[in-house]
Amino acid sequence: MSKELTQYDFPDDLKKMDLKEMELLSYAIRDFLIEKVSKTGGHLASNLGVVELTIALHKVFNSPDDKMIWDVGHQSYVHKILTGRAGEFDGLRQMNGISGFPKGKESPHDAFDTGHSSNSISAAAGMAAARDLKGERNEVIAIIGDGSLTGGMAYEGLNNVGASKSKMIVILNDNGMSISRNIGGVSQHLSKLRTSNGYLRVKKTIKRALNRIPVIGDDLSTNIGHAKDRIKYALLSGGVIFEELGFTYLGPINGHNIRETIEVLELAKHVNGPVFIHVMTRKGRGYRTAEIDPNKFHGISPFNPETGKVLKPSGMTYSKVLGMTIENLAAENKKITAVSAAMCDATGLGGFAKKYPRQFFDVGIAEAHGVTFAAGLAKSGMRPLVAIYSSFLQRAYDQIIEDVCIQNLPVVFAIDRAGIVGADGETHHGLFDITYLTSMPNMTVLAPSDGNQLAAMVRYAFSLDGPVAIRYPRGDCFYDPEEQITFDGKNQRIFEGKDLDIWAVGKMLQTALETREQLKVQGIDAGIVDVAAIKPLDLSCLKEKSKLVVTIEDGLLAGGFGDKFIAESKVQEVLTFGWPDQFVEHGDCDGLYKKYGLDADSITERICEHIERKA
Amino acid sequence: MSKELTQYDFPDDLKKMDLKEMELLSYAIRDFLIEKVSKTGGHLASNLGVVELTIALHKVFNSPDDKMIWDVGHQSYVHKILTGRAGEFDGLRQMNGISGFPKGKESPHDAFDTGHSSNSISAAAGMAAARDLKGERNEVIAIIGDGSLTGGMAYEGLNNVGASKSKMIVILNDNGMSISRNIGGVSQHLSKLRTSNGYLRVKKTIKRALNRIPVIGDDLSTNIGHAKDRIKYALLSGGVIFEELGFTYLGPINGHNIRETIEVLELAKHVNGPVFIHVMTRKGRGYRTAEIDPNKFHGISPFNPETGKVLKPSGMTYSKVLGMTIENLAAENKKITAVSAAMCDATGLGGFAKKYPRQFFDVGIAEAHGVTFAAGLAKSGMRPLVAIYSSFLQRAYDQIIEDVCIQNLPVVFAIDRAGIVGADGETHHGLFDITYLTSMPNMTVLAPSDGNQLAAMVRYAFSLDGPVAIRYPRGDCFYDPEEQITFDGKNQRIFEGKDLDIWAVGKMLQTALETREQLKVQGIDAGIVDVAAIKPLDLSCLKEKSKLVVTIEDGLLAGGFGDKFIAESKVQEVLTFGWPDQFVEHGDCDGLYKKYGLDADSITERICEHIERKA
Repeated sequence: MSKELTQYDFPDDLKKMDLKEMELLSYAIRDFLIEKVSKTGGHLASNLGVVELTIALHKVFNSPDDKMIWDVGHQSYVHKILTGRAGEFDGLRQMNGISGFPKGKESPHDAFDTGHSSNSISAAAGMAAARDLKGERNEVIAIIGDGSLTGGMAYEGLNNVGASKSKMIVILNDNGMSISRNIGGVSQHLSKLRTSNGYLRVKKTIKRALNRIPVIGDDLSTNIGHAKDRIKYALLSGGVIFEELGFTYLGPINGHNIRETIEVLELAKHVNGPVFIHVMTRKGRGYRTAEIDPNKFHGISPFNPETGKVLKPSGMTYSKVLGMTIENLAAENKKITAVSAAMCDATGLGGFAKKYPRQFFDVGIAEAHGVTFAAGLAKSGMRPLVAIYSSFLQRAYDQIIEDVCIQNLPVVFAIDRAGIVGADGETHHGLFDITYLTSMPNMTVLAPSDGNQLAAMVRYAFSLDGPVAIRYPRGDCFYDPEEQITFDGKNQRIFEGKDLDIWAVGKMLQTALETREQLKVQGIDAGIVDVAAIKPLDLSCLKEKSKLVVTIEDGLLAGGFGDKFIAESKVQEVLTFGWPDQFVEHGDCDGLYKKYGLDADSITERICEHIERKA
Repeated sequence: MSKELTQYDFPDDLKKMDLKEMELLSYAIRDFLIEKVSKTGGHLASNLGVVELTIALHKVFNSPDDKMIWDVGHQSYVHKILTGRAGEFDGLRQMNGISGFPKGKESPHDAFDTGHSSNSISAAAGMAAARDLKGERNEVIAIIGDGSLTGGMAYEGLNNVGASKSKMIVILNDNGMSISRNIGGVSQHLSKLRTSNGYLRVKKTIKRALNRIPVIGDDLSTNIGHAKDRIKYALLSGGVIFEELGFTYLGPINGHNIRETIEVLELAKHVNGPVFIHVMTRKGRGYRTAEIDPNKFHGISPFNPETGKVLKPSGMTYSKVLGMTIENLAAENKKITAVSAAMCDATGLGGFAKKYPRQFFDVGIAEAHGVTFAAGLAKSGMRPLVAIYSSFLQRAYDQIIEDVCIQNLPVVFAIDRAGIVGADGETHHGLFDITYLTSMPNMTVLAPSDGNQLAAMVRYAFSLDGPVAIRYPRGDCFYDPEEQITFDGKNQRIFEGKDLDIWAVGKMLQTALETREQLKVQGIDAGIVDVAAIKPLDLSCLKEKSKLVVTIEDGLLAGGFGDKFIAESKVQEVLTFGWPDQFVEHGDCDGLYKKYGLDADSITERICEHIERKA
């Protein structure tokens, strides 16, 4: 390549490229991705896997008129490069920089904001229906991974789209693995398609099919009534589920062969009604360390591009403590079972899964099923733990109420990534859980302030007879393996203070301790309560209702701990700190706390102002 | 039948019956159901459809050791009769009477409480996994309607179960229609199975298959390795999707033929791994008026069993006002579109669907898809309305946040059945919506106090540029077609009052008016504010922060309007009325309001006590 990626005028310049140039472009994009993501961290393997597919998409379709909807969205880096954002990759996932997910605010080429799995087909269906009503003719394309197909919402989408006559293209980006290994009957169906119909043979089949069609071009659409059937029978090398659902199935094809991919996409343009294209890709393609361990390079911190080694390996994390604790408990109690939704390693359950394979269930990206499955386990006498990220657990909101809480079943929810998560941004922050979990009857809601407390809470949770949710943040935590503490469902006073009390929820205890030191300098004496029990709300540490109370939580203010404290404590003077009524962007956590007034400096300042105003 | 149904000792007595007696039993059960439900109201058509199937199930399996999980659960009346509860049918769905849904509290035969759709397979999978871990041998059977199969969660369940080796039986109760007409690709697949493989032929096929198996009985299991394949090929008359997912597919069979159904259930017992039985039934079977209009008899109020006429036809309802309003708006604005999740008529959209078929989308029981589909419509410039019951909208909690609110898309949510719904009980009350909707950034939350205000609010909602939720109750409402009011997003003071102010949310305005009259008798002068705008919370009617404020809402106290009012208004003295932190049982609404202290009498009493205590 003679030019830097940043010097092109994409996507226009791509339209002028020939096959050879596009192949060179794919190399340049891979080098660029590895270089940039090694510095910023981000989703690498999934993007390396879709380089050629994304090139082919932008060659064949005209974004932003044609709409591309990237399921989950973490594989949209190449799309960002090819829509004029290569120059912004130094700021990828950084505060004020571009997001690691599609954002309409960032570019008109990002047709629909995504972040959570399995919704692209539904969104695309809506956009296709709108197009038809408006009498327009643009294409709508959903690009979805095989992992996302385990989510029931994808099926709801396929089921509805397949039955409609509306033109829409669903591209299955099948890399034979989602974040964890793949789950379920459909996955086995796909793997049968792969093995029984090697895509090498398909190339010839396509050629044959194309030869049979009189003219490739706009004229094709007039012949499509007949051509469609012929294409269908020529290319239908399986895909019976998708055919039965009403799609024209094309594939599987080699998604790293740009020419083949372009040919099939061109063909799909000319098919009426919904089309399903099965594209085989390899996660981490072209970067050997990532091909060998795509799991590690799924979402990765900054790393050395030569060795693949992460620059600052994390120490002890809340996730690891969860994993160790549940393994220890299982050694004592055969009823312990654990459920993960395609996040076995990330939630710390890898060790448990190896040690107790019969008691471990990875249900794939199917949070709703996972929760009700756990309810079934509990109803039959098991003691299940469900480990899911806070923002993903939102997918099982109804099931927690209907299938767990109504029957008061002893399911323990280990809610990882609660609070802000940093670089993944607004779709991934776990800010809603306190509000929605505390509103559910029978639910106990806890938040540890360090790893030892998490371990104690998990033990405590399994001693209770109803549902318990333990919410804890992403990342490192203090943990002393020598220290064995117990938890009794009570909040704990850490410091007495004559001027005010800070009630800090979970990890915000650290911020409270810093704030206390800063207030001391100002001559203000603050007490501290470690709020571990959010619901039932333990107010035994509350002595005087006339003293100022400051609440700090890493969650929404609306319906959060602070509001609950005000309503239940009847304390007259309360200052609440938490996240405001708006979506919080991506950025480093410290920067976000500062920006939103949730760091010790800002909290101290507001407390001092409040006290001055009163005086 | 020589005896009354109440005189049998079910299920034991059923085990002793021969085919002839079971056939007579089916007639007796139908007569019983029609007689009882005509008095209490309830789900009739679905229960008439499963009489023989339920008899066969209890003949072949041993409840409660064998677990039957009834998806949705409103078709469990026959099951209740056959498990010793015939004598309690006069109290069906009445306060302190038996529930219209399975309840573990009511009987050990109700293996898992259900109410919302599509979760039975997941719950059964959990119970089957627990059984395997415990080394037990009982059967686990999920009975699911074809309508529920449109829910993505059912697919998540099938996908996981199909891939496991665990024995489980899924019975598809296929009546070719759910509450509304059926939706989607799978439905078309089922209908193909029905038509291309008439079940009359299947009977012979089964006989042939049975003849080929050496011994029917426990010995069969040892031969099953071979037999399974033979059965599979003999009986597999389609069902390719289910076979591909990993199930042994049996059917379709005639679910009104007791003998045939028993034979296939016996067969299913002996198949290893997951089995899928496709049973054809007819909704309303045996009661001509219900067969002709099963929609009407899906959930029905008390009716005349001779004529099928409902005794007290409802007058103007909130749902009807919604329907009329959206029709009127669509006449002016071509961008108006409406989305229903299998509740077209019940949400009042029947007229709109007929008049504007291209702009109407019934997505089936697929709330998650429906919401994101609407987001796609909105993103492409349409103005969608999504009409879903409050408790069912819980299924789309994550999609409202992630796909609608983050992008601030103008989707109007018409949330029917908000607040308590009465006889359907805890799974169907709409008590969570205020809490969860007000926590979502960008969301406007409104509640009308009568039909005219609802109409005005819908117009107002379409004038805004972001998401709006309008929550309104089940049932009748005041509506004057001559009266054209406007709504401007503000709350309205109805009465001045020198002693206190009542802020009443939506329909609770009526209760506030009654309370005001009662307080007057006690010499207390109460003002009233009609709270229509819950979020953004309009406090312009608030003049004095020192005066007592009473809030009344038909929703949860936790995170509800009252808590929000306390946190935002800074009023020092607030009494909040709403639903407590527990699940509310079924019963008539008036009885429930009284029991939970939310009727005018109870509210007046508590206010008087409060004022006395102060004095």
